[in-house]
Amino acid sequence: MRQAYHDELNAISAALVDMTNLVGSAMNRATTALLDGDLALAESVISHDEAIDQLYREIEERSLELLARQQPVAGDLRVLITGLRMVADLERMGDLAVHVAKVARRRYPQSAIPAELRATMLEMGQVAQRIVTKAGSVIASRDLDMAAELEKDDDVMDSLHRQVFAELLDGEWQHGMECAIDVTLVGRYFERFADHAVSVTRRVVFIVTGQRLEPATASAVSSA
Amino acid sequence: MRQAYHDELNAISAALVDMTNLVGSAMNRATTALLDGDLALAESVISHDEAIDQLYREIEERSLELLARQQPVAGDLRVLITGLRMVADLERMGDLAVHVAKVARRRYPQSAIPAELRATMLEMGQVAQRIVTKAGSVIASRDLDMAAELEKDDDVMDSLHRQVFAELLDGEWQHGMECAIDVTLVGRYFERFADHAVSVTRRVVFIVTGQRLEPATASAVSSA
Repeated sequence: MRQAYHDELNAISAALVDMTNLVGSAMNRATTALLDGDLALAESVISHDEAIDQLYREIEERSLELLARQQPVAGDLRVLITGLRMVADLERMGDLAVHVAKVARRRYPQSAIPAELRATMLEMGQVAQRIVTKAGSVIASRDLDMAAELEKDDDVMDSLHRQVFAELLDGEWQHGMECAIDVTLVGRYFERFADHAVSVTRRVVFIVTGQRLEPATASAVSSA
Repeated sequence: MRQAYHDELNAISAALVDMTNLVGSAMNRATTALLDGDLALAESVISHDEAIDQLYREIEERSLELLARQQPVAGDLRVLITGLRMVADLERMGDLAVHVAKVARRRYPQSAIPAELRATMLEMGQVAQRIVTKAGSVIASRDLDMAAELEKDDDVMDSLHRQVFAELLDGEWQHGMECAIDVTLVGRYFERFADHAVSVTRRVVFIVTGQRLEPATASAVSSA
């Protein structure tokens, strides 16, 4: 009985790691779709979000069932409750990948991203994928060093986000208002994606250390 | 013992309603600060967010303690878990009010909002406050009709959000890029604020009816 219970706890944790892989892949493909103006790829991100939502509901239901059936105490209770929070963060990260893909779709056959911002946006996409991959490792291994590394990646994301605004504000913008709005929003989607990944790992840190860190809400523009 | 337990459940519910009042007031003051270029008011929203975060932590800890101590089953378990989700939505709504206030502060002594958008932004602020007030009533009374009304208010918010983009894109924008970025982001903050309120009420609907509605993620631009 206890063995089955711990197997189920581990299975939920493994499903959370699967979810980091799915949302990481979604954001990676959304970034490529955005940069290359690839409609089919954008559509695949949008339609695949249902699989992420499905996994979200499964993890939620399994966690609630375990809570109701096993009445876990102390540590296990905290793990399950924290898992419910993490899965909500991850579901939202999937939505943010969809938002990026929808910008790509709306601007097809053009790319929404002008040449001078391609390198920055590519890097934002790469940092996003790196950060969520590390979040998966932190969930799997509870590795606090990797959690600290991830915070640094988030600083890189914030710096890239500031670069996007600097490009928009340098007085030489030639790409019109629609493109400026897209770039502003896409920058925000990437930044929020990273914030949610930070939030996921901070919840793991809280489980391990009992130390609560504040939610990540840094915003290059609005926190200035 | 059971009486004390139900008193505590009710107290948590009342604290959630208090939290809707706090974030509604924060967004109302942030909107005024934004439209009037009122620095003191913007600062008050920013510094007052700590009180919202404090209430968030209190509700979280009381809920976790009740979960651990009373091992609630079925209905009460669902109420407590749902409360933990709602309080996270409400905390995030407080952050969004702070984001609006920070735009006001950064642009002081000017208003970040040009004349032709003042009426639209004022209405977004009013809808935001109305929607979170209704969310409080839904938490307090579990009134499903009011939950349905709130969904209509969210449609109004989406429509106002589209008006903001229409203004930015009508080819007559005279206010420069910084203002365009601020308007784009502030529009997004209002829209997300309303989405979180919808999410809060849908969680109540789920408690009452068992019927799960999808999270609100409509976005006037990116869902197009």
